[in-house]
Amino acid sequence: MKVLDMKTKNINDLNNILFNESDIISNRKIEDDVMEIINNVKQYGDEKLLEYAKKFDNANLTTLKVTKLEIQNAYKLITEDFLIAIKEAKENIYEFHKKQIKSEWSLKKEGIELGQLIRPIERVALYIPGGKANYPSTILMNAIPAKLANVEEICIITPPNKDGNINPYVLVTADLLGIDEIYKIGGAQAVAAVTFGTESIKKADKVVGPGNKYVAIAKKILYGKIGIDMIAGPSEILIIADKYTNISFIVADLLAQGEHDELAKMFLVTKDKEIIEKIKLELDIQLGELNRKKILKESINNNLYIILVSDIKEAISISNLIAPEHLEIMIENPKQYLKDIKNAGSIFLGEYSPEVLGDYLAGTNHTLPTSGNARFSSPLSVDDFIKKPNYIEYSKDAFNKVINSISIIADVEGLDGHLNSAKIRKL
Amino acid sequence: MKVLDMKTKNINDLNNILFNESDIISNRKIEDDVMEIINNVKQYGDEKLLEYAKKFDNANLTTLKVTKLEIQNAYKLITEDFLIAIKEAKENIYEFHKKQIKSEWSLKKEGIELGQLIRPIERVALYIPGGKANYPSTILMNAIPAKLANVEEICIITPPNKDGNINPYVLVTADLLGIDEIYKIGGAQAVAAVTFGTESIKKADKVVGPGNKYVAIAKKILYGKIGIDMIAGPSEILIIADKYTNISFIVADLLAQGEHDELAKMFLVTKDKEIIEKIKLELDIQLGELNRKKILKESINNNLYIILVSDIKEAISISNLIAPEHLEIMIENPKQYLKDIKNAGSIFLGEYSPEVLGDYLAGTNHTLPTSGNARFSSPLSVDDFIKKPNYIEYSKDAFNKVINSISIIADVEGLDGHLNSAKIRKL
Repeated sequence: MKVLDMKTKNINDLNNILFNESDIISNRKIEDDVMEIINNVKQYGDEKLLEYAKKFDNANLTTLKVTKLEIQNAYKLITEDFLIAIKEAKENIYEFHKKQIKSEWSLKKEGIELGQLIRPIERVALYIPGGKANYPSTILMNAIPAKLANVEEICIITPPNKDGNINPYVLVTADLLGIDEIYKIGGAQAVAAVTFGTESIKKADKVVGPGNKYVAIAKKILYGKIGIDMIAGPSEILIIADKYTNISFIVADLLAQGEHDELAKMFLVTKDKEIIEKIKLELDIQLGELNRKKILKESINNNLYIILVSDIKEAISISNLIAPEHLEIMIENPKQYLKDIKNAGSIFLGEYSPEVLGDYLAGTNHTLPTSGNARFSSPLSVDDFIKKPNYIEYSKDAFNKVINSISIIADVEGLDGHLNSAKIRKL
Repeated sequence: MKVLDMKTKNINDLNNILFNESDIISNRKIEDDVMEIINNVKQYGDEKLLEYAKKFDNANLTTLKVTKLEIQNAYKLITEDFLIAIKEAKENIYEFHKKQIKSEWSLKKEGIELGQLIRPIERVALYIPGGKANYPSTILMNAIPAKLANVEEICIITPPNKDGNINPYVLVTADLLGIDEIYKIGGAQAVAAVTFGTESIKKADKVVGPGNKYVAIAKKILYGKIGIDMIAGPSEILIIADKYTNISFIVADLLAQGEHDELAKMFLVTKDKEIIEKIKLELDIQLGELNRKKILKESINNNLYIILVSDIKEAISISNLIAPEHLEIMIENPKQYLKDIKNAGSIFLGEYSPEVLGDYLAGTNHTLPTSGNARFSSPLSVDDFIKKPNYIEYSKDAFNKVINSISIIADVEGLDGHLNSAKIRKL
């Protein structure tokens, strides 16, 4: 835990402390490994995917696709409670994301029609992390906006456990959404497989979903050959609180963030210095009751920052600078500050809207921009699964009225082929 | 020019011919050069930018920012005709892009409010290619959607000519849009400068606009540190025509595409074999009258494909497979096919809606996805200059009703810190 008092710090210092930019050049080794995997999958297809399942996932597979029987059997391995809860989440996520559906439009003038179309992406692959972890909520968050965008084909790619199986909660959640095309592949090799296609896996137009460093680097390298959602970094939370905020809520929410991994970042921004000691005490108490102590100790030690400010205005400025993935505003009347928030992934207002509510159930998306990317990007939405081609239709008369203007601009730009294409149509 | 008869070709062959995927791994040398430039600009700032202006642009500069006087003087160097034409283009582009402006929305239930906000990106850099070329139209196409999104700060980065000046048409167009922050920097060094900031250039949140290979690679490397629009490849056109289409229009539009550079791609898809000879003859005639013969001969030779199909349905399938940046449908009643177009950047309907109309004047954007990226991305729009943060507000009662469901999902995902964050709020 580090305490930064803004009275003695410049906001640019903060920038340097928080955003370590040296990582841009540090991944050459992993890049080379990923490139080798990509080229192998491109060249040898399924054969290499089976080999990598053995090598990276310790799984002996003979086929890559999950069978109908495996999906049916998964229902026997899960609880009724889970089914009820995941259906509730599903309903809420559908309800929220339905509001993101857009319409085509056109603009008509004499002899002229322009318009913007809406077309779903044809085929999307959802990457779901696997192995020891299982994230059914990630399926909901990625598949529901794709479904609402009318994506025709959705497949799931997820690494198998060492018995060669996929977690039953993941299979059931996929089935609830009508997705039955699931492949037991993970890592960079999975991203390569859906980019180029193999004997048993059809190439996709876009790949979305979180993953480890290998997945992130494969996505970055292959972007352009396939569409991607974003390059996800470690998760972050920023909490704005004061001496009236329930200390145990603050600490619980910091820990919920910190348990993700050792790199998870936590910021508590407050004007009330006196809460620091209370936070420390409460951290010790709650930490004692949690399972992921090792991860938590490391993330708290390295990546928990308490930032002391003079007032709420400064707190908001710092939040806008950091552009956190998750922003909790736990002070009185939080909604009044919404207008001042410029950069954030998802914003949680008040003491009873913790991040975990958005992670699973409220209905907003949990795939959010990290590492300051909320300065320029948005939560995953229906928009990420559509394209908006434009169209133009001019009549002969309408076109003839603009030939002169087009010719002048083409001439200035020095493109006489463009000029010719306009003038040749002159009546 | 190559003729591909689909009767003897498989659609997958076509895929292999058109999309040469080997280029993924061929740029290591340029990547290393770009990385060196990036690191130098990050470390040494303005000093290196001045050095690179000398090295790459042959320009002796002492300051990087264009002065007010330079902008005023630019008006003396341009024609009145140009001013009228560019203002007409500006009006049309504003009119079209205004329709893309979105509203925030919220969804209220008992004790619950969820919503999607709209926030402009705070600071955007527009890269405008320079040197010998000058592209005032590119300023309009990039700056207008940014303005309509309410981006607070827009700066232009563009390489100087060897006298250390920026083209007057570029300066005047920027001034017409109220942009007075213009820097004489280009290439990878310009992208690095707006990513990290230097003594005289403030860091930006996103960089947009076309550029050469160095610019494209710098954007790809720095993506995540800064937002980018897309990685632009060579320009393409696909024309669907038949024996009734005016041959000279077809040829003029192919040439307008081919003159961009040697890598520009042109596809003519038709069911009427008999037009091939006429196209060849007309190519020779029109080519004789154009300036960029060298570029055109090479692009026609290497990258002009005539694809013979059985019917319009097959033509549309091939177009959807190629996902062209520009698609011209020059057959009778073109609008009826709009519903079948899945993948395209901008679609031009009929003989009097050539691509050049969209390049400059109709109002749609000319920054379009290339290299098949129209399968998953869209023309530049107001959407590219906003973020859509979500927010959640639950009352104490509303939250208590969902604690159980959240706990069940958190438990399945094995995250007891998440479980704790929900349960600690139980009444």
